[in-house]
Amino acid sequence: MLIKIMQNVLEANDNKAAELRAQLNKQNIFVVNLISSPGSGKTTILEKTLPLLAAKNIRAAIIEGDIATDKDAKRLEPFNVPVALINTDGACHLESVSIEKALQSFALDAIDIIFIENVGNLVCPAEFDIGEDVKVAVLSTPEGTDKVSKYPLLFHEASLVLLNKIDLLEYLDFHVQTFYNDVAKIHPDLKVIEIAASKNIGLEEWVDWLEACVEKKKKTMRHD
Amino acid sequence: MLIKIMQNVLEANDNKAAELRAQLNKQNIFVVNLISSPGSGKTTILEKTLPLLAAKNIRAAIIEGDIATDKDAKRLEPFNVPVALINTDGACHLESVSIEKALQSFALDAIDIIFIENVGNLVCPAEFDIGEDVKVAVLSTPEGTDKVSKYPLLFHEASLVLLNKIDLLEYLDFHVQTFYNDVAKIHPDLKVIEIAASKNIGLEEWVDWLEACVEKKKKTMRHD
Repeated sequence: MLIKIMQNVLEANDNKAAELRAQLNKQNIFVVNLISSPGSGKTTILEKTLPLLAAKNIRAAIIEGDIATDKDAKRLEPFNVPVALINTDGACHLESVSIEKALQSFALDAIDIIFIENVGNLVCPAEFDIGEDVKVAVLSTPEGTDKVSKYPLLFHEASLVLLNKIDLLEYLDFHVQTFYNDVAKIHPDLKVIEIAASKNIGLEEWVDWLEACVEKKKKTMRHD
Repeated sequence: MLIKIMQNVLEANDNKAAELRAQLNKQNIFVVNLISSPGSGKTTILEKTLPLLAAKNIRAAIIEGDIATDKDAKRLEPFNVPVALINTDGACHLESVSIEKALQSFALDAIDIIFIENVGNLVCPAEFDIGEDVKVAVLSTPEGTDKVSKYPLLFHEASLVLLNKIDLLEYLDFHVQTFYNDVAKIHPDLKVIEIAASKNIGLEEWVDWLEACVEKKKKTMRHD
């Protein structure tokens, strides 16, 4: 009985996600679901990414998922993009019904890309479709080499990994080759970009990747 | 209906946890539920702690919670203590029914302390009583200053915080005073021990704390 009800919850979530995806596709908006452990650097990555996108005339909006507090949302306020905050009040991941509400606060025809910063958690967010085009996993080098094999679902589902805090490598026991070997085992096509967001390292490749995604989305829709 | 069933699940978990706690109390075994984000250093802390406890003739056992793989369990095998592995197969936290099974694999009359290394997750494990005497939260400095206020439940529930990777402070933007202020707001009595497990810094205070807990447990039971 519990299992059946959990299935219903997941089904309801996925149906709503499919609905949101169809709506956002119609409006040519590219959606990134950003997932990582607490403290891997998701918000810092957004702080550094927003000005680079603005310089390319790509119009972004943010949905901030947090268990408690508006700290991350406040950090992104100065960047002059719409920021919608979802406090999950203890829940360990975002669901599509909250995303729907957040979207209603945006002027969608003035947006090219939406970043959804999920709750800091390497496990649960990977299980819930929230209408995104891609899941981007952030892994930071201080978390250790073994995270890809220990938390395989996210790395299986992700379209891109940002390997963050690469500037700390010399102080850590992180084995870069083992990391790449584990990625190759779990998801052979998975793209990795090495960055150090707080030091502005590697961000150009990441922003070029985002730009290509946004462009591709617009072209795809034009041919529909 | 879903809410009622979730309550039943939590109730069943808590009832089983109370049962385990009563059993472990009778046997004077002190139980630590170790909780943190992925990569904060729980396994490394155990690797460094086990020899120090052995030197004090404190007999330890480990229950390893992992979503997939036996990597952490394998790392602890060389320390000549009983290690029981629970693979949660995707689940984001341990529950007391799994702990009961793990305990059945131990010779409990030859154990003074059990460490339960929970799934790497700052959210869900804090919600589930698994029969422990104390929750010990591990937070590592690369995760950032804001984690206490952003994930308040764990720090509210914990009896001790190990602030790990303190050796990296000079390379990071971690504000020690803000961290302590946040701790004081959420849980004024919460004890903090600063450590760098991989560098053997601060471990003596941690092991002394454990020893005092084990001793207290034995004395309490003698007077019952």
